[in-house]
Amino acid sequence: MKREIYDTEHEDFRAMVRAFTAKEVTPHLASWEAAGQVDRSLYRAAGSAGLLGLGVEEEYGGSGVDDFRYNAVLNEELCRAGATSVAMNINGFTDLIAPYFRELATPEQKARWLPGLTEGTLVAAIAMTEPGAGSDLRGIRTRAERTADGYLLNGTKTFISNGVLADLVIVVARTTAEDGQEALSLLVVERGMPGFERGRKLDKIGLSAQDTAELSFTDVPVPAANLLGEDGHGMAYLKRNLPQERVSVTVMAAATMRRVLEETIAYTRDRIVFGRPLSSLQATRFTLAELATETEIAQTFTDRCIGELAAGRLTDTEAAMAKWWVTERQQHLVSRCLQLHGGYGYMTEYPIARDFVDTRATTLFAGATEVMKEIIGKSLLR
Amino acid sequence: MKREIYDTEHEDFRAMVRAFTAKEVTPHLASWEAAGQVDRSLYRAAGSAGLLGLGVEEEYGGSGVDDFRYNAVLNEELCRAGATSVAMNINGFTDLIAPYFRELATPEQKARWLPGLTEGTLVAAIAMTEPGAGSDLRGIRTRAERTADGYLLNGTKTFISNGVLADLVIVVARTTAEDGQEALSLLVVERGMPGFERGRKLDKIGLSAQDTAELSFTDVPVPAANLLGEDGHGMAYLKRNLPQERVSVTVMAAATMRRVLEETIAYTRDRIVFGRPLSSLQATRFTLAELATETEIAQTFTDRCIGELAAGRLTDTEAAMAKWWVTERQQHLVSRCLQLHGGYGYMTEYPIARDFVDTRATTLFAGATEVMKEIIGKSLLR
Amino acid sequence: MKREIYDTEHEDFRAMVRAFTAKEVTPHLASWEAAGQVDRSLYRAAGSAGLLGLGVEEEYGGSGVDDFRYNAVLNEELCRAGATSVAMNINGFTDLIAPYFRELATPEQKARWLPGLTEGTLVAAIAMTEPGAGSDLRGIRTRAERTADGYLLNGTKTFISNGVLADLVIVVARTTAEDGQEALSLLVVERGMPGFERGRKLDKIGLSAQDTAELSFTDVPVPAANLLGEDGHGMAYLKRNLPQERVSVTVMAAATMRRVLEETIAYTRDRIVFGRPLSSLQATRFTLAELATETEIAQTFTDRCIGELAAGRLTDTEAAMAKWWVTERQQHLVSRCLQLHGGYGYMTEYPIARDFVDTRATTLFAGATEVMKEIIGKSLLR
Amino acid sequence: MKREIYDTEHEDFRAMVRAFTAKEVTPHLASWEAAGQVDRSLYRAAGSAGLLGLGVEEEYGGSGVDDFRYNAVLNEELCRAGATSVAMNINGFTDLIAPYFRELATPEQKARWLPGLTEGTLVAAIAMTEPGAGSDLRGIRTRAERTADGYLLNGTKTFISNGVLADLVIVVARTTAEDGQEALSLLVVERGMPGFERGRKLDKIGLSAQDTAELSFTDVPVPAANLLGEDGHGMAYLKRNLPQERVSVTVMAAATMRRVLEETIAYTRDRIVFGRPLSSLQATRFTLAELATETEIAQTFTDRCIGELAAGRLTDTEAAMAKWWVTERQQHLVSRCLQLHGGYGYMTEYPIARDFVDTRATTLFAGATEVMKEIIGKSLLR
Repeated sequence: MKREIYDTEHEDFRAMVRAFTAKEVTPHLASWEAAGQVDRSLYRAAGSAGLLGLGVEEEYGGSGVDDFRYNAVLNEELCRAGATSVAMNINGFTDLIAPYFRELATPEQKARWLPGLTEGTLVAAIAMTEPGAGSDLRGIRTRAERTADGYLLNGTKTFISNGVLADLVIVVARTTAEDGQEALSLLVVERGMPGFERGRKLDKIGLSAQDTAELSFTDVPVPAANLLGEDGHGMAYLKRNLPQERVSVTVMAAATMRRVLEETIAYTRDRIVFGRPLSSLQATRFTLAELATETEIAQTFTDRCIGELAAGRLTDTEAAMAKWWVTERQQHLVSRCLQLHGGYGYMTEYPIARDFVDTRATTLFAGATEVMKEIIGKSLLR
Repeated sequence: MKREIYDTEHEDFRAMVRAFTAKEVTPHLASWEAAGQVDRSLYRAAGSAGLLGLGVEEEYGGSGVDDFRYNAVLNEELCRAGATSVAMNINGFTDLIAPYFRELATPEQKARWLPGLTEGTLVAAIAMTEPGAGSDLRGIRTRAERTADGYLLNGTKTFISNGVLADLVIVVARTTAEDGQEALSLLVVERGMPGFERGRKLDKIGLSAQDTAELSFTDVPVPAANLLGEDGHGMAYLKRNLPQERVSVTVMAAATMRRVLEETIAYTRDRIVFGRPLSSLQATRFTLAELATETEIAQTFTDRCIGELAAGRLTDTEAAMAKWWVTERQQHLVSRCLQLHGGYGYMTEYPIARDFVDTRATTLFAGATEVMKEIIGKSLLR
Repeated sequence: MKREIYDTEHEDFRAMVRAFTAKEVTPHLASWEAAGQVDRSLYRAAGSAGLLGLGVEEEYGGSGVDDFRYNAVLNEELCRAGATSVAMNINGFTDLIAPYFRELATPEQKARWLPGLTEGTLVAAIAMTEPGAGSDLRGIRTRAERTADGYLLNGTKTFISNGVLADLVIVVARTTAEDGQEALSLLVVERGMPGFERGRKLDKIGLSAQDTAELSFTDVPVPAANLLGEDGHGMAYLKRNLPQERVSVTVMAAATMRRVLEETIAYTRDRIVFGRPLSSLQATRFTLAELATETEIAQTFTDRCIGELAAGRLTDTEAAMAKWWVTERQQHLVSRCLQLHGGYGYMTEYPIARDFVDTRATTLFAGATEVMKEIIGKSLLR
Repeated sequence: MKREIYDTEHEDFRAMVRAFTAKEVTPHLASWEAAGQVDRSLYRAAGSAGLLGLGVEEEYGGSGVDDFRYNAVLNEELCRAGATSVAMNINGFTDLIAPYFRELATPEQKARWLPGLTEGTLVAAIAMTEPGAGSDLRGIRTRAERTADGYLLNGTKTFISNGVLADLVIVVARTTAEDGQEALSLLVVERGMPGFERGRKLDKIGLSAQDTAELSFTDVPVPAANLLGEDGHGMAYLKRNLPQERVSVTVMAAATMRRVLEETIAYTRDRIVFGRPLSSLQATRFTLAELATETEIAQTFTDRCIGELAAGRLTDTEAAMAKWWVTERQQHLVSRCLQLHGGYGYMTEYPIARDFVDTRATTLFAGATEVMKEIIGKSLLR
């Protein structure tokens, strides 16, 4: 079905991103995967192409246009090129991290950090998850004690995307208000601050070009000037951004479904079994028909969510529905498509093999399927 | 998610249909079900309310507005009231049969039949399926031999909705062109024509108020004036209308999903098990979350299809995707909701029991799921 | 796979049951279904054939052999003949009710009731479920107050199989011990006792020959001589019999799977679509292969459970596993087989249609799927 | 359920294998995985322990007992230790390759090869699959032309397990009988024969310690003494051994299901979410209940197949049923268990991550699920 959410400007942007990807991403992908992380040069290239400033004010190097559809186009094009890890780096910044700087930073903070972030000379990460707490923000134990001129930060974070590369890390920490109430706050920890250590890079099933790390903070002195937003409002800030994070993952999943399906259709036409194309078997045709239907439906629903998000209307519940359903269908599709490749699908030289290992993460991060179902279930019974 | 396809006019029409349904349908439903068919008075009431003339020219008693969204609203409201059988009667006419008269009939034919059809004094049916041929139009054996002033019709049809009530039956028959080529043609057989017999009413698992019958034709003389469209063009006419028929079923399925889900959520709140509401169990909440997600997604895709159909852009493939997926999810949802009702769900006094038996038909008629997958599969590999 | 649990004696018994079914069941099935209940003559015929005394001592008219495999053979043969409702009557007695009399009755009680029960002149039922309590035995509110010479019984029961026909009803009621502790007891209520009323027969989706009723008890005087087992031990008695009840349903489900699959294979060979047998389509073949695999596996596991039960080793957890899995697969199989019948599958004249409506009950009664999963889940985490 | 197929001798053998695995496998597993293949020392150790001679005559270093249950125990113990790759090496030999030598080799061939194979000083492989032919044996193009004293072999094979390590490769090749008929024959190619080249080791999603390679044959002179069995009977030999190969994979899958389930149950008890063990959530409990049920059923059916195979009664169809169903359930279980591990499940340091990548192969090799369904479907409609 013809997609309806994009205008000519978005399609022009798409053409630009496609060219960028072909030149700056695809040729390096294998070496980044081997290295277990992208090179910092990716960020600078993306910055030069204007891809890191989506939604950011022009004075700080941004596009000056706040329209999530551009983020979606960027994400789609990276996934279309099979560079899911890179999408997690680039859209990880534009969709998940940039909003905190854009919406919460003071003019001084914006001036300090946004130019570097939009140029790609500064790399950022956000650190929520802790070893013992999982997706449960209420279980966070990292603590920032007030000092004369800021905070003293202690704690450990894990599963931090870009944890190794990051120059700036937004750390979610527990602080105590003057009335003794505990709450969450967001502190920007910078590379080189004493007591800020990076643990080992975590070895994952897939998404190899995306570095994931443990971070530890031991008596790290964080100046008050590095507090993002108001002290104690962290939970509200995090919650506000969750729907966008989830739509971002959904966009990625739908784009991957489209590409993998297309490649698999081509494969089944070319592959000869028992003397005729694999695609000529009715069982193949039925499987492809089922997957194509789910892909079309997933894209339609994703597009509706992109539109509602861009218009500021998307609810938590709707984002949760999109997130779990599309990523679960993505995993199903990728595994079925691998199956259609037969033994070749198990060999890493085939793209489907990489898609299989990359895809397994999508029902886990940004809120696992089970967490999404809880959100939806509660909203139904409210 | 707020639905986007309807304007104020459609919502005004909805209010009218809702009032009509409450007054003219709901009070009679049980007796129609017991009788195995609706009363002809339903058609007259629907005609008076202007519900049978959607898309028909005003001069023939129609609305004068060709916009499928009105058909969809009508369908939704009947299903919302649990009157699926009645939706199959009324939308069966407006969505499946009226288009043949509207698009193919000559001015004379229109003047002869459309006023009665839109008033509800004439009831129509369409007869495609044959005992030996199933969904395969190419297997049709009913044959109309040319005579001096028309045709002599012989054959048997089965699974004909409204077969018992119908005054006019559009019969799909095989005819022979002058060059000896065989092809399909559409002939209008009228009540009382010699040789036109109705077989027994078929007893079905559900949809009890919808009469379904076998029809037989033995040397029925059909005048040339009863040929609809051109001789030999029947296949093209049928194919042209299939997407609308399939969207019609999809609309019905999505509307039923919404109502059944809503009723089941209410039931799980009220039902106390082991001392607390059934809805307080996580397993219930997860099931409802899954079903609510699928309902939202089904409605979103259905709405896209309604919009595309109303705009004249919907393809066969897209209609097939919507048809099979939404009806399969409908059956899944209804069965899961029945399960949540426990033993009560098996008792016919509960609406969910009727929905269960009614719903089992939707993946069978208007092209079974398997036929839809073939259509999609072939289009992918074309 | 060749079944291994039966010896020659069991196969001889099978031949006898098959002959009995052909003579005494099949010819009457349609009229019993129309009547909404079997005729009492069924019980007398079954009694004459020795089918009601499985496991009962010979002196009371029983077979004198306690071997559940005979019960299983009886059940399989009735289901093989499509007489699921009748299996619920007959095996409902032999598998679910007879054990209470056999294991708990005093010699006097046995002499009073067992001869009639095994002859089929007395019909029995067991009444556990209550309108407000569902599967939760702890929620039972029917109460039996001690009197000088017995109990005064008050309460309401629902979903009682054979509720209309029964001459004896084992009622599960709450009693108060001398120390004031409340507990469950089993009381035999007899036809004609004052205050014992039968409510309306409940109208169900299927299982039409099986009467299901509400029963009410208002100050019914039950003599002490009608207490089955010890006062206050009801819960233990009920729990002890649950695995057998669940295996009984599992046997029924597996036997139905076999028959429906066989019939459907035959149907797909005979049915011509697009010029060739339906069975020649790969999609049909794959569906049948999947269903045949699940049937084989279901039968294998059921047989293991029959063997373990006959040997007195089957645990609650194992019975729960068999019950939910086999009945869920049965529903899946029946619905898929109906789909392979196309529109004919929806017509009640085809056996598959009756199987579809009958089958929907099996995941609900004898402990719903959700209750089974709780039992298993708890045992895993104990 | 207590397993019934093993006697004391088998359990004694299990204890020995368990000790062997702990000493000779587990400590080396990580290094073998890093190397992409096991060390030849594994074979010598296994040979010394008597694990390579199952079913082989004592005079050639074997156990002298032909009982597949020992093979199954060996397989189960290796998988229980998480050494699936190693099971594919060791049972790959005992279950898949040894039978060809045992059943087809002449006394001279046995004396030449079996002592080395059972000692572990010779490593063997079997080469069926070709780049263009997949699972279709009829598509084999590798050809052996008759020469004066043997054959001249030309062709390419792929996905050959142990391809890099093997000293002896049973190559399936097309030969021409004297009457001009083409058929398959089995030729033993030995390390060092001129024209026998090993291609690169293939990089797989998982099963890292199992080397998989391409092999090429260019004018390799194979003496007549290296023909296994009769010329032209290859297809029959291969088919005869397929059920055992498929049961071997099934045993592996069922054993993995048991271990992964057990580990996951333990994980969910220990893992605290939102302040309580993950296992205390009903959704977790239901998932575990479903997986435990399928594991029990899979093991029961696998055991039946082991028994039937050991007794020489297992049919192709039954083996195909076990193969596809158990491996599909294995993949489902492993993916669900990974999901229960949350983000940790995606980190390779957790065993579940390795199981996930290893498991993806099981529905592909030894006959893909689709091939199994064809076999079953055809047998049903025969």
